[in-house]
Amino acid sequence: MPAVAVLRIGHRPERDQRVTTHVGLAARALGARGMYLAADDPGVIKSIEDVASRWGGDFFAENNVKWRRCIEDWKAGGGKVVHLTMYGLRMTDVIDDIRDQERVLVVVGAEKVPGDIYGLADYNVSVTTQPHSEISSLALFLDHLFEGKELNREYPDAKIRIEPSGAGKKTVEQ
Amino acid sequence: MPAVAVLRIGHRPERDQRVTTHVGLAARALGARGMYLAADDPGVIKSIEDVASRWGGDFFAENNVKWRRCIEDWKAGGGKVVHLTMYGLRMTDVIDDIRDQERVLVVVGAEKVPGDIYGLADYNVSVTTQPHSEISSLALFLDHLFEGKELNREYPDAKIRIEPSGAGKKTVEQ
Repeated sequence: MPAVAVLRIGHRPERDQRVTTHVGLAARALGARGMYLAADDPGVIKSIEDVASRWGGDFFAENNVKWRRCIEDWKAGGGKVVHLTMYGLRMTDVIDDIRDQERVLVVVGAEKVPGDIYGLADYNVSVTTQPHSEISSLALFLDHLFEGKELNREYPDAKIRIEPSGAGKKTVEQ
Repeated sequence: MPAVAVLRIGHRPERDQRVTTHVGLAARALGARGMYLAADDPGVIKSIEDVASRWGGDFFAENNVKWRRCIEDWKAGGGKVVHLTMYGLRMTDVIDDIRDQERVLVVVGAEKVPGDIYGLADYNVSVTTQPHSEISSLALFLDHLFEGKELNREYPDAKIRIEPSGAGKKTVEQ
């Protein structure tokens, strides 16, 4: 399975804080190693880091990266770049090929992305070829990439974890 | 496969417009029949209906429903109610059982939900038992429920559709 990081581009600090925070949390919960944020928004980074610190694992969130440099560095290190866009190739047609890669950077845009991204990416990938959400696209992409293996992942160093329950809320602090 | 609708609760018109719109669009793209919104926010309904009208299918979006009444009516009609919550039972443990139902109402909360929901639901279901997003939870739940069959669904009555492309944006108006 490849090592995966997410690059979030097109984030506007006022409008996108909740969506970008959800992108970061979905990235963590579905098995990515971390998220690079191509914008200066320390509040979003702190929200994600606070969750990662309580719920365990070593997910990183890096503020204010330059997106072009991030992509170039990733490729220079031998990694592949996947851009999630509704205009891309069907996920089901390319996911097996992507799963064979060692390192994958998943680029997740907001409403508008720089046109250069399409050419810089090794794969432009569409999840359903319908409009929905970068959060659902990322989650579905990671779940198919990892073939569901991340769904019941455990975090041995967590300060808090959930005891699954048929009705109610049970947490264990440790 | 069950017929599925989504009930969105806890929506606050100012704060949640984008997230609730994404919930509705993810519901549509991943195979739900429609969304009931337990709040008065015609702008969100219009955004979702505009997408559904251009991109095809018969997804419905209903404004300002009473959540308790919606759940009671659903159950009275013989349907089952699934509440997505990070505190619930592991999705992988219950999804096969839920797939055998005929009609499923998926309740998707925002940050806070009325405590009664846990008791009213037939299933409280957690996608990963980690905090992430109601958008990613809903998308993953529907994809597992439908076993991926909705990912390449076609919409014969669409006014616009995407021609999947390795680089760039190709759409077909029809």
